[in-house]
Amino acid sequence: MTVNQKPDTFNGSKHWPGLIKAYRSFLPISDKTPIITLQEGSTPLIPVDSISRLIGKKVKVYIKYDGLNPTGSFKDRGMTMAISKAKEQSCKAVICASTGNTSASAAAYAKRGGMKAFVLIPEGYVAQGKLAQALVYGAEVLSIKGNFDKALEIVQKVSDNFPVTLVNSVNPYRLQGQKTAAFEIIDSLGESPDFLCIPVGNAGNITAYWMGFNEYLKASKSTKVPKMMGFQAKGSAPIVNKKIIKDPQTIATAIRIGNPVNWEKALKVKEESNGEFFEVSDEEIINAYKILGQKEGIFCEPASAASIAGLIKIKERIPEESNIVCVLTGNGLKDPDCAIKNNDAIFHTNLDPSLDSVIKTMGL
Amino acid sequence: MTVNQKPDTFNGSKHWPGLIKAYRSFLPISDKTPIITLQEGSTPLIPVDSISRLIGKKVKVYIKYDGLNPTGSFKDRGMTMAISKAKEQSCKAVICASTGNTSASAAAYAKRGGMKAFVLIPEGYVAQGKLAQALVYGAEVLSIKGNFDKALEIVQKVSDNFPVTLVNSVNPYRLQGQKTAAFEIIDSLGESPDFLCIPVGNAGNITAYWMGFNEYLKASKSTKVPKMMGFQAKGSAPIVNKKIIKDPQTIATAIRIGNPVNWEKALKVKEESNGEFFEVSDEEIINAYKILGQKEGIFCEPASAASIAGLIKIKERIPEESNIVCVLTGNGLKDPDCAIKNNDAIFHTNLDPSLDSVIKTMGL
Repeated sequence: MTVNQKPDTFNGSKHWPGLIKAYRSFLPISDKTPIITLQEGSTPLIPVDSISRLIGKKVKVYIKYDGLNPTGSFKDRGMTMAISKAKEQSCKAVICASTGNTSASAAAYAKRGGMKAFVLIPEGYVAQGKLAQALVYGAEVLSIKGNFDKALEIVQKVSDNFPVTLVNSVNPYRLQGQKTAAFEIIDSLGESPDFLCIPVGNAGNITAYWMGFNEYLKASKSTKVPKMMGFQAKGSAPIVNKKIIKDPQTIATAIRIGNPVNWEKALKVKEESNGEFFEVSDEEIINAYKILGQKEGIFCEPASAASIAGLIKIKERIPEESNIVCVLTGNGLKDPDCAIKNNDAIFHTNLDPSLDSVIKTMGL
Repeated sequence: MTVNQKPDTFNGSKHWPGLIKAYRSFLPISDKTPIITLQEGSTPLIPVDSISRLIGKKVKVYIKYDGLNPTGSFKDRGMTMAISKAKEQSCKAVICASTGNTSASAAAYAKRGGMKAFVLIPEGYVAQGKLAQALVYGAEVLSIKGNFDKALEIVQKVSDNFPVTLVNSVNPYRLQGQKTAAFEIIDSLGESPDFLCIPVGNAGNITAYWMGFNEYLKASKSTKVPKMMGFQAKGSAPIVNKKIIKDPQTIATAIRIGNPVNWEKALKVKEESNGEFFEVSDEEIINAYKILGQKEGIFCEPASAASIAGLIKIKERIPEESNIVCVLTGNGLKDPDCAIKNNDAIFHTNLDPSLDSVIKTMGL
């Protein structure tokens, strides 16, 4: 079952139809489900040779570039499912707590489906691009003086007591959609990788990938499952440190979560896959972020770079000739400030608009 | 020849391989060309029902969402070609003038190909996300006190006199790559649309699309070609107004160009396709930008919205039951400031992190 073997008719021709239509038989979808889609999924799996060389041992490293989903993050995979099911159930409004990516995705899909979207965000800790998205998609944005964990606690209570559907990853359809990323990786490689390296915040995505790898194994699309390597940001690493972090801090705002909803599930994934969890510092994250940009031409948000930072950190543990996929969860354009503050580029400003001035500056 | 019928082997399996491998037989590529790719192309063609209803007359409108290319704009289509050919010719450095999208793309592909990238940008007129990209990809950025047209004049002279390859759209490989967007549209729809609506800045893209539509017609992949409708921003509309604009001004910075390099070619496209060129105001552009965000869940940069603004403006000219494709050239995340300044969202800040405060704010 490869991407190219799963076409869907689109106006008489063939076309990537979005992940629900592409992976319909693996998803809890009926003929009555209205499919709200922006043709999410089918994101690139790109070889990153500079990282492979850094690890050595004839290891082959790929990145799954999920920042090329329609709203710029992996959240779209789960949101097409959650919003389609909400629409099926005649829901009129959805709500979520978010560090920014979920709110952007929820707003886009809800509005496309003709629903209202309420989003709770932690004031001052949402990257600029993500806030811009929630606003442009026309969400009703509530910025609270508290962190993500507090916001999640509140939206759960709101959806328990009012006719507003919760679309955080406690909504089971979210992980159903997200598991398709594992399908795509196997469809591209023809087999499961040996390791999956993935950033861990609320721990929904690592849980979803594990579900996907196991379903494809059962369906004989692969002959093995990967070791699941989860990476948290130092200062925001409750699972690694085995304790709730009251005031999580990290440059990687997308995984700035001190009390992950899917904590128990993540521990189960670790155990079942013989995987491991580690923490990476902001410095290690930014180092990986720069390598991806400067050597590979790939721009991700800081949280995404945690997967590469983690792989570099544990490279001694990687056996010869392993195939490794690192998940880049979000687009770098989500957080332009981080790029402007953290780069090694040479930037000349205020130059005279003349050939002489330019030649001189270029050192020609 | 549909997207799904043009697979390429990728590690033993099937996978979208980037546009050069997908459309190899239509491109000036040899076995000796090293292919520098980020798996660009294969971008969504999304039906936009709210726009279709706005036009009426059973018209069907789609957007070609080229902002989902690897660096967030259509420029990647041309850049994979230009940089691969530069690499084939053992070039060590590339240069371009840019309003931001070309420089982001040139930097990403050049660095991926192991080359240096010099980019000239007009100081103060490059959207924040685009500047962030050039920096993160490690370009050498030269910001000049002059506009795009002046920057282009300078880089042409630099490349004429020094061993630095010019990768602006005067580089013929750029348009070769860009024409593949027309292929993809026909591959998805099974036929050419009746109209293509497209923003016009330097007029390279409209030229490339026209080339693509004609090559596919000749190859019997379609039975007709579309009318090419080009839209310039008022204040920056030299072709529409038949005169060079010395100091072009518009919110749509990506098409803020007063003296397009491909002016003559664009006029030929208009004539050959029985198309038309119009100007749209910044207000019309922002109106279209908001409709796309709020009704369709699609976030584009302001210049891209010119295609939708234009279609709305000329809707009386559109015959019944036409199929129309509007090109969205760049991702909205490229210009977060524009979104933050131009939206109709409700944004509550500084809220107490309590259920009561949130319920009250939501009006429940």
